Amino acid sequence: MTGAWTKCKSVLVTGSSRGIGLQLVKELAERSDRPARIIATARDPASSTALQEISKAYQGVHMVTLDVNSQESISSAVQEVQSIVGSEGLSCLINNAAINISTDLNTVTPDAMMTTFQVNSVSPLFVTKAFLPLLQTSASQSTGMGLHRAAVINISSILGSIQANWGETAAFKAYAYRTSKAALNMLTRCLAVDLGPKGIVCMSLHPGWVKTDMGGPLAELTVEESVSGMLSVLSTLSEDDNGGFKDYRGHTLPW
Amino acid sequence: MTGAWTKCKSVLVTGSSRGIGLQLVKELAERSDRPARIIATARDPASSTALQEISKAYQGVHMVTLDVNSQESISSAVQEVQSIVGSEGLSCLINNAAINISTDLNTVTPDAMMTTFQVNSVSPLFVTKAFLPLLQTSASQSTGMGLHRAAVINISSILGSIQANWGETAAFKAYAYRTSKAALNMLTRCLAVDLGPKGIVCMSLHPGWVKTDMGGPLAELTVEESVSGMLSVLSTLSEDDNGGFKDYRGHTLPW
Ligand SMILES: NC(=O)c1ccc[n+]([C@@H]2O[C@H](COP(=O)([O-])OP(=O)(O)OC[C@H]3O[C@@H](n4cnc5c(N)ncnc54)[C@H](OP(=O)(O)O)[C@@H]3O)[C@@H](O)[C@H]2O)c1
Ligand SMILES: NC(=O)c1ccc[n+]([C@@H]2O[C@H](COP(=O)([O-])OP(=O)(O)OC[C@H]3O[C@@H](n4cnc5c(N)ncnc54)[C@H](OP(=O)(O)O)[C@@H]3O)[C@@H](O)[C@H]2O)c1
Repeated sequence: MTGAWTKCKSVLVTGSSRGIGLQLVKELAERSDRPARIIATARDPASSTALQEISKAYQGVHMVTLDVNSQESISSAVQEVQSIVGSEGLSCLINNAAINISTDLNTVTPDAMMTTFQVNSVSPLFVTKAFLPLLQTSASQSTGMGLHRAAVINISSILGSIQANWGETAAFKAYAYRTSKAALNMLTRCLAVDLGPKGIVCMSLHPGWVKTDMGGPLAELTVEESVSGMLSVLSTLSEDDNGGFKDYRGHTLPW
Repeated sequence: MTGAWTKCKSVLVTGSSRGIGLQLVKELAERSDRPARIIATARDPASSTALQEISKAYQGVHMVTLDVNSQESISSAVQEVQSIVGSEGLSCLINNAAINISTDLNTVTPDAMMTTFQVNSVSPLFVTKAFLPLLQTSASQSTGMGLHRAAVINISSILGSIQANWGETAAFKAYAYRTSKAALNMLTRCLAVDLGPKGIVCMSLHPGWVKTDMGGPLAELTVEESVSGMLSVLSTLSEDDNGGFKDYRGHTLPW
């Protein structure tokens, strides 16, 4: 839907130092219907040359330091973002930062499980909770549901689909990653139940298998293909998507 | 199926100091077709008078100390169980121990999330991994799939169903518990994929809403109703249940 992103006043992306998060920031900044304010957060924005270049090349791309695991870092990011978005609030939060430690039945450790739950399942909850007042400020200024009002997008994975973890699609073994993304999908659903009535739509989005540090060079999609697909799916975001799980082509995925 | 439990040589239950775990031990011990060896584990068996009484009243009920969060405790439990079951191995492991800290969107904390993931999602994996050699010993002595061979039963919850967390059934808010049980269901599926080919069937089982310390006095079912239902569902355990999610009446639940 051309024009949809103009109605979205601000987007915040976590983990935008590289990979899909970086590309989300780039493609949002390049769009003719771009949101006014793009907030590119990263643990250490200064160390990402690619992110530095994007923020120099485009106006209204704000780099903010955010380690999603640290409550202190989250709190100062909220303050900084508050001063960027002002009385308009935050329209769209994209929880993208995640890790994928290699863990099959033999190699999985309690530490790998717990660290992965922390980054992939727990941090998105506390990032969302912290930005909730800003999302609610945005939500209070419109009606309906969608990008024009307020949204929380959790970047999940087909590997988090319990149903799909069977037969051929079960070949990829990843105890920590799979359980953490299933938990994230439940988080999406819990948030959708609680935030939907406040006008904030919440969904899980699978980017496809993408050539990034995480996806590896054999992946099916370039970051461009994945991200342009996801942005187009998000451009039609509506009430129907609240509590949903879709892929970058807009196909609904099973839990 | 009468007689099914006789073919199951040994059952181990975690968290059998009280509630559903205690009742599982009691009803297994009382059955006419009971398994020869019932291993009732608990963090501190000595402090559960009810468990002490059962182990005195029935032969072949072995109390073993097991804190599912402690790798050390798991290792010594495995040694102790090895000496109980000997060359027959372990037929059925029931991962029942769990916690439910009250967590709605306002009260949830990172600590509550992480502690709950530890007990409800991570510990069942490492308990299962540790008992795997004993389960494989049992599996190596039969063919087919079911109680007569080897099984891992994860006591899950309808609250872990992502699909069911909507509308009326979403009224019970529990961020930590719900995400941890969704993760446990994914664990069930990962284990089913890996252990199924070794002849070990793995499933998630929902006990219903049960009057225990966790379920509270307003719950729908007595522990007797829930546990007799679950034992009857398990008595027909077969290949078809591998990677499945059923309730105490044998109804399949959505992920
Ligand atoms: N690539 C795929 O095929 C694929 C498939 C399905 C789903 N996904 C999902 O898509 C999202 C992006 O993945 P990707 O492929 O772009 O991964 P990636 O290339 O490994 O990038 C991960 C990003 O997350 C950031 N991050 C990790 N821990 C963080 C923390 N504590 N605080 C802030 N940022 C943190 C990293 O920052 P640093 O640079 O500071 O490490 C990096 O920017 C993830 O949610 C992933 O699970 C990817
Ligand atoms: N009750 C319900 O309505 C309901 C509904 C759906 C699912 N469930 C599930 O059914 C199972 C049993 O629940 P319940 O109602 O019997 O709960 P409960 O009455 O609270 O009993 C929990 C049991 O888990 C044990 N436990 C907790 N942490 C442990 C640890 N670290 N190591 C070893 N044991 C530990 C407790 O031992 P201590 O005595 O040492 O604390 C206790 O024996 C759980 O998996 C629960 O999630 C219950």
